[in-house]
Amino acid sequence: MKEKGLLIVLSGPSGVGKGTVRKAIFSKGGTKFEYSISMTTRKPREGEVDGVDYFFKSKEEFEALIKQDKLLEYAEYVGNYYGTPIDYVKETLDSGKDVFLEIEVQGAKQVREKFPDGLFIFLAPPSLSELQTRITTRGTESDDLINNRMKEARKEIELMRLYDYVVENDQVEAACERINAIVQAEHCRTERVAPRYIKMLEVE
Amino acid sequence: MKEKGLLIVLSGPSGVGKGTVRKAIFSKGGTKFEYSISMTTRKPREGEVDGVDYFFKSKEEFEALIKQDKLLEYAEYVGNYYGTPIDYVKETLDSGKDVFLEIEVQGAKQVREKFPDGLFIFLAPPSLSELQTRITTRGTESDDLINNRMKEARKEIELMRLYDYVVENDQVEAACERINAIVQAEHCRTERVAPRYIKMLEVE
Repeated sequence: MKEKGLLIVLSGPSGVGKGTVRKAIFSKGGTKFEYSISMTTRKPREGEVDGVDYFFKSKEEFEALIKQDKLLEYAEYVGNYYGTPIDYVKETLDSGKDVFLEIEVQGAKQVREKFPDGLFIFLAPPSLSELQTRITTRGTESDDLINNRMKEARKEIELMRLYDYVVENDQVEAACERINAIVQAEHCRTERVAPRYIKMLEVE
Repeated sequence: MKEKGLLIVLSGPSGVGKGTVRKAIFSKGGTKFEYSISMTTRKPREGEVDGVDYFFKSKEEFEALIKQDKLLEYAEYVGNYYGTPIDYVKETLDSGKDVFLEIEVQGAKQVREKFPDGLFIFLAPPSLSELQTRITTRGTESDDLINNRMKEARKEIELMRLYDYVVENDQVEAACERINAIVQAEHCRTERVAPRYIKMLEVE
């Protein structure tokens, strides 16, 4: 009878503030989803705690996990691995709790392949919607600068299409509120709710 | 550049409390959507105000509007017509505001045909999810009673499948909160947001 939890993936271009938004979401009590802690081979920074900020592993340990297919997604940045241990995610979802991942866009693509019915949220920079003002006031900025921004914006919009929802990170509080609303709404979607009722009748 | 508003349709089986939930939603300030007042040929009850509770019309006026295709949906109950004037809905959506309809299930079907991308919310009676308890404790209730309830529940679940979301009316406040979350989330759906960004780039 137990319904599976939702896999919630927050991603977006680097520098958009994913980490800040994620921390704000979990800093409040009453959050109904579980944060999946990432694994990394980079050294802990001052104040970082193993099992809280990251699971810190050696390169050998990490590569062994890759070989055993124990990572839901992983990527290499600046010589270090970052990834999401799959067991925790699966066990938590099976127990009926929602799991929240905050990961890079390449990672989100890998997760989409394994969990096509996850909830994918793209965090968009406010600069994207400010673009119009910049275009219409282009007299004040060079054409090269505008064109570069347009090119970047096009790339971001292409990326966005792989996600179910787009949340603009104009203000951290507002972004958190939208993300919470999205999760709440998703639990009310007919394709998630109706099977629960149908199962109930089959119990007969 | 102006984005069209969302058409929000709240419906569900009669007696589920649609009117109570709708009133609770609009009783609070800060609601961002406009309520579409229904039109009826029934006589105003004490305290009801024309243009607030309903638009009160004669049978002849109502039938003229039907002929002119000026109703988004309508139905007849106990010898009286009830319907939704289409002009207000279209003008409000065009102005970029969300419109909220609270209507019967037959009406919702008609609206779905004309506005397939509206947001359809099914208000479900809590009795539906209580069914399981009733089934498992069936010793205390007659088989006939249980079977009747199961039959009714099956019908309701069939109905529910025509909607995008299901909100259980277990508590009015909780139902309102879910409906507000659904509307907020829907505004963040990629298929609604991405075209806005794309349009922005085309302005170039």
